[in-house]
Amino acid sequence: MSARPAAPIRVGIAGITGYTGLEAWRLLTAHPHFEVGPLAAGRGAGRTLGSSWPALAAHSNAPIEALTVDFARGLDALVLALPHGVSAPYVATLEAEGLLDGLRIVDLGADFRLRDTDTYARAYAARHPCPDILERAVYGLTEVHRDAISSARLVANPGCYPTATSLGARVLLEAGCGGPVYASCVSGVSGAGRKAGPRTLYCEVQDSVVAYGVGGAHRHVPEMEQELGCPVVFTPHLVPMIRGMLATISMAAPASLKNADLLAAAEALYANEPLVVLRDAPPATRDVRGTGLAHVHVCLDAERHVAQAFVAIDNLGKGAATQALQNLNRMFGLPETLGIPTVPLLP
Amino acid sequence: MSARPAAPIRVGIAGITGYTGLEAWRLLTAHPHFEVGPLAAGRGAGRTLGSSWPALAAHSNAPIEALTVDFARGLDALVLALPHGVSAPYVATLEAEGLLDGLRIVDLGADFRLRDTDTYARAYAARHPCPDILERAVYGLTEVHRDAISSARLVANPGCYPTATSLGARVLLEAGCGGPVYASCVSGVSGAGRKAGPRTLYCEVQDSVVAYGVGGAHRHVPEMEQELGCPVVFTPHLVPMIRGMLATISMAAPASLKNADLLAAAEALYANEPLVVLRDAPPATRDVRGTGLAHVHVCLDAERHVAQAFVAIDNLGKGAATQALQNLNRMFGLPETLGIPTVPLLP
Amino acid sequence: MSARPAAPIRVGIAGITGYTGLEAWRLLTAHPHFEVGPLAAGRGAGRTLGSSWPALAAHSNAPIEALTVDFARGLDALVLALPHGVSAPYVATLEAEGLLDGLRIVDLGADFRLRDTDTYARAYAARHPCPDILERAVYGLTEVHRDAISSARLVANPGCYPTATSLGARVLLEAGCGGPVYASCVSGVSGAGRKAGPRTLYCEVQDSVVAYGVGGAHRHVPEMEQELGCPVVFTPHLVPMIRGMLATISMAAPASLKNADLLAAAEALYANEPLVVLRDAPPATRDVRGTGLAHVHVCLDAERHVAQAFVAIDNLGKGAATQALQNLNRMFGLPETLGIPTVPLLP
Amino acid sequence: MSARPAAPIRVGIAGITGYTGLEAWRLLTAHPHFEVGPLAAGRGAGRTLGSSWPALAAHSNAPIEALTVDFARGLDALVLALPHGVSAPYVATLEAEGLLDGLRIVDLGADFRLRDTDTYARAYAARHPCPDILERAVYGLTEVHRDAISSARLVANPGCYPTATSLGARVLLEAGCGGPVYASCVSGVSGAGRKAGPRTLYCEVQDSVVAYGVGGAHRHVPEMEQELGCPVVFTPHLVPMIRGMLATISMAAPASLKNADLLAAAEALYANEPLVVLRDAPPATRDVRGTGLAHVHVCLDAERHVAQAFVAIDNLGKGAATQALQNLNRMFGLPETLGIPTVPLLP
Repeated sequence: MSARPAAPIRVGIAGITGYTGLEAWRLLTAHPHFEVGPLAAGRGAGRTLGSSWPALAAHSNAPIEALTVDFARGLDALVLALPHGVSAPYVATLEAEGLLDGLRIVDLGADFRLRDTDTYARAYAARHPCPDILERAVYGLTEVHRDAISSARLVANPGCYPTATSLGARVLLEAGCGGPVYASCVSGVSGAGRKAGPRTLYCEVQDSVVAYGVGGAHRHVPEMEQELGCPVVFTPHLVPMIRGMLATISMAAPASLKNADLLAAAEALYANEPLVVLRDAPPATRDVRGTGLAHVHVCLDAERHVAQAFVAIDNLGKGAATQALQNLNRMFGLPETLGIPTVPLLP
Repeated sequence: MSARPAAPIRVGIAGITGYTGLEAWRLLTAHPHFEVGPLAAGRGAGRTLGSSWPALAAHSNAPIEALTVDFARGLDALVLALPHGVSAPYVATLEAEGLLDGLRIVDLGADFRLRDTDTYARAYAARHPCPDILERAVYGLTEVHRDAISSARLVANPGCYPTATSLGARVLLEAGCGGPVYASCVSGVSGAGRKAGPRTLYCEVQDSVVAYGVGGAHRHVPEMEQELGCPVVFTPHLVPMIRGMLATISMAAPASLKNADLLAAAEALYANEPLVVLRDAPPATRDVRGTGLAHVHVCLDAERHVAQAFVAIDNLGKGAATQALQNLNRMFGLPETLGIPTVPLLP
Repeated sequence: MSARPAAPIRVGIAGITGYTGLEAWRLLTAHPHFEVGPLAAGRGAGRTLGSSWPALAAHSNAPIEALTVDFARGLDALVLALPHGVSAPYVATLEAEGLLDGLRIVDLGADFRLRDTDTYARAYAARHPCPDILERAVYGLTEVHRDAISSARLVANPGCYPTATSLGARVLLEAGCGGPVYASCVSGVSGAGRKAGPRTLYCEVQDSVVAYGVGGAHRHVPEMEQELGCPVVFTPHLVPMIRGMLATISMAAPASLKNADLLAAAEALYANEPLVVLRDAPPATRDVRGTGLAHVHVCLDAERHVAQAFVAIDNLGKGAATQALQNLNRMFGLPETLGIPTVPLLP
Repeated sequence: MSARPAAPIRVGIAGITGYTGLEAWRLLTAHPHFEVGPLAAGRGAGRTLGSSWPALAAHSNAPIEALTVDFARGLDALVLALPHGVSAPYVATLEAEGLLDGLRIVDLGADFRLRDTDTYARAYAARHPCPDILERAVYGLTEVHRDAISSARLVANPGCYPTATSLGARVLLEAGCGGPVYASCVSGVSGAGRKAGPRTLYCEVQDSVVAYGVGGAHRHVPEMEQELGCPVVFTPHLVPMIRGMLATISMAAPASLKNADLLAAAEALYANEPLVVLRDAPPATRDVRGTGLAHVHVCLDAERHVAQAFVAIDNLGKGAATQALQNLNRMFGLPETLGIPTVPLLP
């Protein structure tokens, strides 16, 4: 167990006007060793936390700053919850100013997730602005890259879909399944962010489900394939819930595979994981609402030789902010689960 | 085009206290040639339509009868919207009383859907009570069995999941795809019926998604495999919406398959179908709310050689009551789409 | 009963990209005597109906025009479903071009609802652009102004809140209640329109209720007070549902008032109204979803001498488009309820 | 500030299979000084916490006991979250067994809320089973009865509606308003409890609002009038959200009242209250989701001489379990807000 740090660790949060930035704030505010430092945002700069989030009106009138180099000065850590394409140039500037060495950064965006710059260029239709920094970034799926994360200075926090899909597909791969990973996933609407747009209006989303980003077009696919090392047929769906993500993963199973083998593979990977819960029935996303847990169920369709994994996470929790905190805890030598909620808000 | 019948066709509805029975009533009440006759229900007998559905309080105080042989006397047609296992014995009684020949029946339950009695016995853990009548039943997926339905006396209306899945998988099979059909489907809560139970309480369902009936265990699987002739890996999910069903169907595609081939296969099957709409993007379930339409989109993940079909239906519409009406129209020589809504309730 | 018109009545719809304009289209498309003519919209001009509403993609590629004078030429009627402040200048232009006499117009916006120009100026912080036309406009609460509507050329369709509130408060006034009308109302989110904004994002609206426009500030207050002739303490609330409006109206009752007197007052006003349903328990908004009905319940809190009325309408139905159709039917001598749905979409 | 207790305070929770019992468990589990002791329930006895709440499957297999006298032995405190009518006989039995003196009890049910036994008899159609114990019970609206609660052995935790209504109406009364309190309130569905019934089925509740318990019939009315000392015209509504309650309170204001006076009255009552937040705009229920806060906004309709208060609480929080904890903290000399969440789960 790690010793209590002598002084609070100051963390700045960039992107505080978005859902994941706010969730990071909620967690860090309650954390025993981290202290929320300055807040920044793109469009919200000049306002206060309480005016951007009226629910917190009486809670805080902390100012929201613009995202400048000065914002990062004097901090121990940075949480970046920014739109894609904003983090990398900012981090490059920090390096140019010589600030990077004194910081530990968790980036919740996509800028540092893909190790291969060609893949990045294909996915984002642009060359990576700072490939040298990219090389030093560590992919932050904690259960897989735990040790590297501990010594990392820059962690690329995984996307919510890749987190859920990878946690499930790993079990099937461990059990010897092959062929493409069929990942049919659903996400709550908060995954689309807080920006206003017709796709996220109440009357367009409510009482309806729709698939999107089909045909292999979603930018999370290369991230999944990088981590899993096999093709992923990924189909995201938008469903009418605020938070929550469910990944339904299917793979062809060896004819000899038994359900007990599948369970054994799951046990082998996750029995000792503090934030992965093995369930004996498919989990509901409500089971993890507001927590940092992943609930996982695996089962075999023995007649059709297909194995399935079901993974429920909170897209803003294990899919974003709690995983960021899990990584920050590791980066600062704190117990990995410190400050991470494990009791869901029920009902 | 068919001639206008001399007199209204009298249809009795059994199961009027459930959601599909009510939807059949809504459609038949507005139909130019059918006339809603007596109403029956299991638990609701003795009440009135208006007391069972307070929304209709001022609309109708039609009595709800018990489901007896007398209920069917003097009718031209019967819509059975009953729990599984109730229809078959009732129909057998009608036959014993010599009433079957004068009636045309559409059964929205599962009792007459599986042609193979062994499969039925496995799925329902019971021998079929009247295999001789089963032999004469026609499976009511209108787009596939249109001609047989026209001359049928007993139509087994397909389940909502098999309807959506079959309409999508047919395109992929037509395009030469093989291997198992991966069918990841979501259903609105009305699919679970109106009976009170913890699984359908607002606070347990809202803001959450869950898979169920996994591992090949769902009773709709044999129905799908019967119609498609290939293995179906079926995963149903419950999502927080009232009505609506989306089937996301994936199959391995031949390496030579082009997206244009897939579109051509869809056109070949559905260009002339009055109630199937080919879409150039994945449909939302809201797009068909309250209608008898199936919206279908197909696309190819060319890099991973997987073809996908997305089918949106209203589980109470094309998945139940409008398909029943489509079949009734055919059975009585009326235009197939007469009285079937095609404009959704938006938003 | 009115005779069938010799030729279809051509109606143009302006504001087709909004929810009420679309609902008017849905109703007019299914109407036996009206024919949907050209479609116009502010921001959607240049697109088609099917591209603005993907659900209708295969249904219609009718072009959406800009709202010009030419748009109205050759039409028999116009439905204006436009943002506040757009209708009046447009109608003034039609008059200047000599087109007004050949048209019958129902305006679903607020421009012609307030008879007093001073009140208008206070509510909208601007002088009315065409007070002479305003004088000729008839307020379209059909149940109250039925005869004037029949001969009107320009009908100002009431707002959804005033419709629900007035229908309820009239009963209490009829029963002799006095003092201010306390109107606590809830609206589904579609009442806020289709424009994107943080207030109507799914994640900001879902699982939450909020009051707004409080302190007498809502623009619907003068409209209510004009119709009711007494002060109205109006409190609107936004609730997480797509469609639906419930008005809970309370007024001080004379000490001698009995519940039977209250019921008698309701019967006196509404027993013969085709679209008002008197209920013996408070109605749910779902009871009228998709219809043109108002469900009304009245009751007395005898101990506290307060009478209450509960009115449920569909804010897009009786609160907007079906009332527009009710008025159009009258303006063209057709049966008032022709083409107005009375069976709700349940569940 | 109170000293840290020498040993954890053991609290038993009765009614753990319901929503409020579970919420109490969630709070007490995270509390630094309380320790969750045995769990009891009526129907759930014999199961475990994890089987009753699958979300907690891996969290706890604590057994659920029957509610016997032995259940309470050895405990320091009891939280009773039971159906109405169950608490009083149980507490009477505890007294008969001599256990009452060693315990501190917070009852979240209605059995000990009404001080007048005649009022109780009218509201519950039964004589109170233990009027002598009732005499000693203290009504647990913390902000009002703080001192009495500190020394109480039995606290009757207020209902959610009376909590929200009283907190708002107190301000209006303080400002000199008179006449009846008009309280139009909305509640999330969790307020109806976890028992299955048609009123709380997803498909009956979703996309709909309904008033209930009208005409002065709701059992919370006498509780409100007892606390406020004036007539309350109370209208509860069920709205489609899981948690949350909003009270919209209106009262006739003296003609001389200014908005500033109203704000001053609110400040006088609540400026120093740790869990009451004064807002400058109407609060949304989402603003307090999962917390123990009450957000209060007051405003004047100066033209109509009516003052209004808007109070948002979480019906399971300040309306039930966090207020229970607030009271327990006081009863054990702990800081009143210890362990009470004040940051909402957003979005």
